[in-house]
Amino acid sequence: MPRYDVVAIGNAIVDVMAPCEDALIAQLAMAKGAMTLIDMDRAHHLYDAMGPAREISGGSAANTLAGLAALGSGCGFIGQVAQDQLGEVFAHDIRAAGITFATPPREGGPSTARCLIFVTPDGQRTMNTFLGASQFLPAAALDAAMIADAAVLYLEGYLWDPEEPRHAMRQAIAAARGAGRKVAFSLSDAFVIARHGGDFHALVDDRAIDILFANQAELAAMTGCDDFEAGIARLAPRVPVLVVTRGPEGAVALAGRGRAEVPAAPVARVVDTTGAGDLFAAGFLHGHVAGAPLDECLRRGAVCAGEIIAHYGARPEADLKALI
Amino acid sequence: MPRYDVVAIGNAIVDVMAPCEDALIAQLAMAKGAMTLIDMDRAHHLYDAMGPAREISGGSAANTLAGLAALGSGCGFIGQVAQDQLGEVFAHDIRAAGITFATPPREGGPSTARCLIFVTPDGQRTMNTFLGASQFLPAAALDAAMIADAAVLYLEGYLWDPEEPRHAMRQAIAAARGAGRKVAFSLSDAFVIARHGGDFHALVDDRAIDILFANQAELAAMTGCDDFEAGIARLAPRVPVLVVTRGPEGAVALAGRGRAEVPAAPVARVVDTTGAGDLFAAGFLHGHVAGAPLDECLRRGAVCAGEIIAHYGARPEADLKALI
Repeated sequence: MPRYDVVAIGNAIVDVMAPCEDALIAQLAMAKGAMTLIDMDRAHHLYDAMGPAREISGGSAANTLAGLAALGSGCGFIGQVAQDQLGEVFAHDIRAAGITFATPPREGGPSTARCLIFVTPDGQRTMNTFLGASQFLPAAALDAAMIADAAVLYLEGYLWDPEEPRHAMRQAIAAARGAGRKVAFSLSDAFVIARHGGDFHALVDDRAIDILFANQAELAAMTGCDDFEAGIARLAPRVPVLVVTRGPEGAVALAGRGRAEVPAAPVARVVDTTGAGDLFAAGFLHGHVAGAPLDECLRRGAVCAGEIIAHYGARPEADLKALI
Repeated sequence: MPRYDVVAIGNAIVDVMAPCEDALIAQLAMAKGAMTLIDMDRAHHLYDAMGPAREISGGSAANTLAGLAALGSGCGFIGQVAQDQLGEVFAHDIRAAGITFATPPREGGPSTARCLIFVTPDGQRTMNTFLGASQFLPAAALDAAMIADAAVLYLEGYLWDPEEPRHAMRQAIAAARGAGRKVAFSLSDAFVIARHGGDFHALVDDRAIDILFANQAELAAMTGCDDFEAGIARLAPRVPVLVVTRGPEGAVALAGRGRAEVPAAPVARVVDTTGAGDLFAAGFLHGHVAGAPLDECLRRGAVCAGEIIAHYGARPEADLKALI
């Protein structure tokens, strides 16, 4: 038995979140609903325009682990923070969630990554990420023994943008593969696919990915098919397990000849969709590692996603174990 | 007409908040419901024991201003942050609320103040404050012109603990008095009264305070009377306006021969009482500055306090203007 259920590599980010009106999204020329990488100047500009905010640890893969840990899974995280207050906040929150996190903080600039998240009245989040220290995760920071000792290695596509972590993730895949472990990959964002689709297709074709997570926009970006079923028909045969989330329309999973669907969990009021995909992945992986059938994996994913969109922030607040 | 409705001097603090069980309060030997000053070692110890948290700007007087600004009042804040990320967070949040804040950040250590707040399932908050840079607010940082140009100078008792800000607040009172302005004072915490009750009584007797805010425990600490009515009878004749909050039992205000009471605003679920007193003061002062009668001032206070205890954090989230 591997010691960890899931070990993930991802951006080590603190989310800075504030509600805003749709007019501000337009005024600041932000791509609503997307994740945009920003530099320090733009970060200052956007922060100045942002209302009173709250800070909550985030990072896509780290959010997924927080969900898994809340469900009782054994988890480890690899990601790069700087030696600063936001780095301390990130490290505290992930460890307090019961997740092993031993990547040493990076000395000197830039600072710990932050994501300025503008949440519109429809619950949609528009993310502006200053990658900071996160983009300098070196391959040397990988704990190969931890990766080899995890049932699943989980990688976030967001981290494919910067060069050093991309290199580190390639090495991590090799380490997991060498130990006979599974690799799960989240496509993260349609714009990331626009930049790195070639790499992602190569990973799929090299059989480097066992479980692929996408939302509808990412499925379309990967396959070039606007039609959902056509996209699935094109991508599903190429990966052992494909999971596609569809927002309020639920989610679909395909594995070999199996196919299952789940409706979205009912939510009284969608407050903030930040982390919906991350927590869906958490619930799905929790079931998958336990050997649950596809439909049960999907159900757990939907429950976790439903919890996270009912409040601000992408880390679970309710008792996920009780909910599933 | 003065340019500002209220200018406040207070701790410039970022709250670090996490839910916890009552058992942890006992295990960590914390004084439930109180504010305890802690040093860096204790801060590290408590933070290590704390669950995943969120960071939201706080500080008692700063919270009151955030409420007043949300209600449309013109406000200015004076308080000391360090030149660090938490200092940037505090400064951003208070300015984004529309409050003038021009105190320059302090170079070098210690870091910006933080308050580790453990919120138990009953909604009660237990606060552990590392004062950091906040305790070094120098009298030189006072903007005497701003104080002279505000209808009310508002001071938080918490800041009476450290020497430099205490000295600064005495000078601020003199500046406000010299300009013919009113001074409002929050007693903040029964333990603060235990340490500085002599000073507070002297301020009252010197007629330095026009509006005094207290909760029941603070009234008892100031008067030595466990009986509420006896306490009021002893303190009210000594100040022009006395406002006493009673938690779920509402609040009472006395001014000369006038007396008014208000029940607590109905709240579906008390999530976190952090800031309840601060926001009550905001609503009350908003009415007072506008010349509203006592009962209307109380009503506004109760509405604002009701909003703040329905969510995490001591800064308003709903539209207070619409609520009152």
